[in-house]
Amino acid sequence: MSTASEAKANIGVVGLAVMGSNLARNLASREGNKVAVYNRTWSRTEEVVEAHPEAGFIAAKTIEEFAQSLSTPRTAIIMVKAGKATDAVIDQLVEVFEPGDIIVDGGNALFTDTIRREKAVRETGINFVGAGISGGEEGALNGPSIMPGGSEEAWHTLGPILKSIAAVAEGEPCVTHVGTDGAGHFVKMIHNGIEYADMQLIAEAYDLLRKAAGMTPAEIAGVFEEWNKGELESYLIEITAEVLRQVDAATGKPFIDIVLDQAGSKGTGVWTVQTSLDLGVPVSGIAEAVFARSLSAHPRQRAAASDLPGPSAPPAVSSSDRDAFIEDVRQALYASKIIAYSQGFDAIIAGAEEYGWDIKKGDIAKIWRAGCIIRAQFLNRIAESYAEHPDLEVLVAAPYFAEAVSRTQEAWRRVVIHAVAAGVPTPAFSSSLAYYDGLRAERLPAALVQGQRDFFGAHTYKRVDRDGTFHTLWSGDRSEVEETGSH
Amino acid sequence: MSTASEAKANIGVVGLAVMGSNLARNLASREGNKVAVYNRTWSRTEEVVEAHPEAGFIAAKTIEEFAQSLSTPRTAIIMVKAGKATDAVIDQLVEVFEPGDIIVDGGNALFTDTIRREKAVRETGINFVGAGISGGEEGALNGPSIMPGGSEEAWHTLGPILKSIAAVAEGEPCVTHVGTDGAGHFVKMIHNGIEYADMQLIAEAYDLLRKAAGMTPAEIAGVFEEWNKGELESYLIEITAEVLRQVDAATGKPFIDIVLDQAGSKGTGVWTVQTSLDLGVPVSGIAEAVFARSLSAHPRQRAAASDLPGPSAPPAVSSSDRDAFIEDVRQALYASKIIAYSQGFDAIIAGAEEYGWDIKKGDIAKIWRAGCIIRAQFLNRIAESYAEHPDLEVLVAAPYFAEAVSRTQEAWRRVVIHAVAAGVPTPAFSSSLAYYDGLRAERLPAALVQGQRDFFGAHTYKRVDRDGTFHTLWSGDRSEVEETGSH
Repeated sequence: MSTASEAKANIGVVGLAVMGSNLARNLASREGNKVAVYNRTWSRTEEVVEAHPEAGFIAAKTIEEFAQSLSTPRTAIIMVKAGKATDAVIDQLVEVFEPGDIIVDGGNALFTDTIRREKAVRETGINFVGAGISGGEEGALNGPSIMPGGSEEAWHTLGPILKSIAAVAEGEPCVTHVGTDGAGHFVKMIHNGIEYADMQLIAEAYDLLRKAAGMTPAEIAGVFEEWNKGELESYLIEITAEVLRQVDAATGKPFIDIVLDQAGSKGTGVWTVQTSLDLGVPVSGIAEAVFARSLSAHPRQRAAASDLPGPSAPPAVSSSDRDAFIEDVRQALYASKIIAYSQGFDAIIAGAEEYGWDIKKGDIAKIWRAGCIIRAQFLNRIAESYAEHPDLEVLVAAPYFAEAVSRTQEAWRRVVIHAVAAGVPTPAFSSSLAYYDGLRAERLPAALVQGQRDFFGAHTYKRVDRDGTFHTLWSGDRSEVEETGSH
Repeated sequence: MSTASEAKANIGVVGLAVMGSNLARNLASREGNKVAVYNRTWSRTEEVVEAHPEAGFIAAKTIEEFAQSLSTPRTAIIMVKAGKATDAVIDQLVEVFEPGDIIVDGGNALFTDTIRREKAVRETGINFVGAGISGGEEGALNGPSIMPGGSEEAWHTLGPILKSIAAVAEGEPCVTHVGTDGAGHFVKMIHNGIEYADMQLIAEAYDLLRKAAGMTPAEIAGVFEEWNKGELESYLIEITAEVLRQVDAATGKPFIDIVLDQAGSKGTGVWTVQTSLDLGVPVSGIAEAVFARSLSAHPRQRAAASDLPGPSAPPAVSSSDRDAFIEDVRQALYASKIIAYSQGFDAIIAGAEEYGWDIKKGDIAKIWRAGCIIRAQFLNRIAESYAEHPDLEVLVAAPYFAEAVSRTQEAWRRVVIHAVAAGVPTPAFSSSLAYYDGLRAERLPAALVQGQRDFFGAHTYKRVDRDGTFHTLWSGDRSEVEETGSH
């Protein structure tokens, strides 16, 4: 075990739970890095250092010792539970760090907290970087996708270190300087929101193959393995096959059948939807995924509603139709997934505009190609679309994706129709398709909503044929008046 | 014009824009009330007082004069723009009021602001009441639905005054003491959220009759007039018929066709969804309504996506099938509406639990029967359901509503299937049906989501067959371990 009196470390990690210790080990394993570690309880530090002698950690007993063990500019990554613990560690580090040093929050902070912290820390002359890190425990150890926000100055020092530990996709490290202050955590939040949608869409595909086509979990695992060879190739498709192949040792039943069907969540899906609502971005696929989880987690309501009837004559998928049905479901999944990503990138574009971040959409797609949970081939197509059309209004309208949805939309409709007729809930498939049909509609019934709002609340409306803001005197002679000034 | 030196007023109004002056006139018109008025600009006060000599207003030039013109306990209703203006007026009133007096915020405040304000004002010994007031300008004048929060003490004085001006439904005034601090504004927020869903569902019904059945706005107006005689009877159905009947004088076209199809919003729909997300309540119908408005308000995206294809062979509704289709749409609208209200009441129940409010669900349904935008016959059925089953887990499972959805669910499915096949976007119809099918499902694919989460993030899962929290060693030998302690 090294001690703080020896050679200085170029990077430090505060917080040595699984994510923190794995990230520290990852850092230590890369050429040129010397890693200092600090944890609130010394026994945990000892445990980690003893278990990983190969890492050559410099172990600090106190925060002061930790600061002394770092070469300048001191650079420390905080890996503690997001919230008050993060603020407490930042306060400690600010006491012992100096102007020009760099504090990185690698936790899942809400981006508005990161904006607040960056502003406060910047006043001390110390750099503060909010960095989203995706990939779970294994990613932290072997190469995560990293989304750092913060100043150019901090990126200058931090960039090479993060590049050394990030996942690599087609030769490029999965890390980029996302933007100032909260940009990194914002993009990580959207990543997680898309992850919610992706997982829900896969779950709906599984549910349809199970309930509507009567397939076994093992058979469906085979379907996902096949799908993973094509345009759906992704980590989530791959692990879905693994989960569906798993057999419960205790009962001999499929693993999926012994798992309680109440989904948990950690908050980033909720944040994505709440933030997108503030930004006026319809992220309906992500919202339906979040709601599907919360619905599942209301067992008393589900029990109370369990006698409500479904269709009296649900359609069957005969064995001769099965392959065609599977292919339809695959296409519906792909089309819905395009919508989920299109909505997610809309939120990034709107967030960048609202908060003044210069986010390169294509670079975000690229750093999600490896290391993170939503890693997929598919992201290359997004990167290419933004490279070819930097000012793309909406991702689904990019030529590549427009072709893809054009090719798959009839199958998508057949699948939603089948699900509705069979009584199998597909909230995310259905919602994505409704969004698609809304987006491409020449006229929307929003005109009626405006008429209603003007009727009951004098909220006014605009006309299709001339500029101005108008109100109809609904309680009067029903003539139209043009509004002048603010209403 | 009365002056402050004459008989004292029992109630005052601060803020004399349209809503405030209408509410003041309403108060003045009721037996036993004497109304003091104050506005930041005296010219507006003069204008209102001169225009309405019958009201006998006591006009105050300053906030001190306003306080002096009120008998004790002084009671004043603030009717200013929600936000900083409200805080400014509260600060002024706290300066001139005394312990035991009552400050009422009648604006559309966010309920968490109301909780904060109530706490701050209470420390001065003055009562603070956040009161949701629904019904728009006309309701303010002739009888709104009023949702006051606050203390019992304040309700003792305020109750009779509010009862005197509220709308009346079947002999009962549409006002009740909702609960402490933010309860009133919370319930008003949910009212508005339900209003969003209700309007969107009506808009989707219109859109289907227009696009899928090829009917004219005037024909559809007739359909809504018919529907208003049955179980859908409501203010929103009534005014929809009026809006669809309207002909634009300038062009001779149906009014609905000259209105720009980009819907506006004022924030309470967004708040409802954001709050429900925090509470873990799936309000998917309200969310889809909010998203449908924001989608409509992205004209550049819509233009970019306008070439994306719809179904190659959309189904037609022949004239002989038209009546059956209209009836199907009516049933789909009714079933979806039940889901929207069921989700809205879920949010009220969850909010009451989170914030410690003793909210009587049946009383809320009753005070929404008149005065407010979502007023409807239907609310009697909700009041009855909660009267018969106070601990109802979910409204849609109440016998009356369970029967209604059982009776209508096949038509609901046919309508969603038709919409999907025709390429007409029905996000709220579709989402409500998916929620219904999810709620009644014996098994949900949330089990797969839990399996995925355990695979990539070691988030653990529960089993269907025994207690405990489990994790499978996915990167190891894939055996299952039981987690002990917190993870």
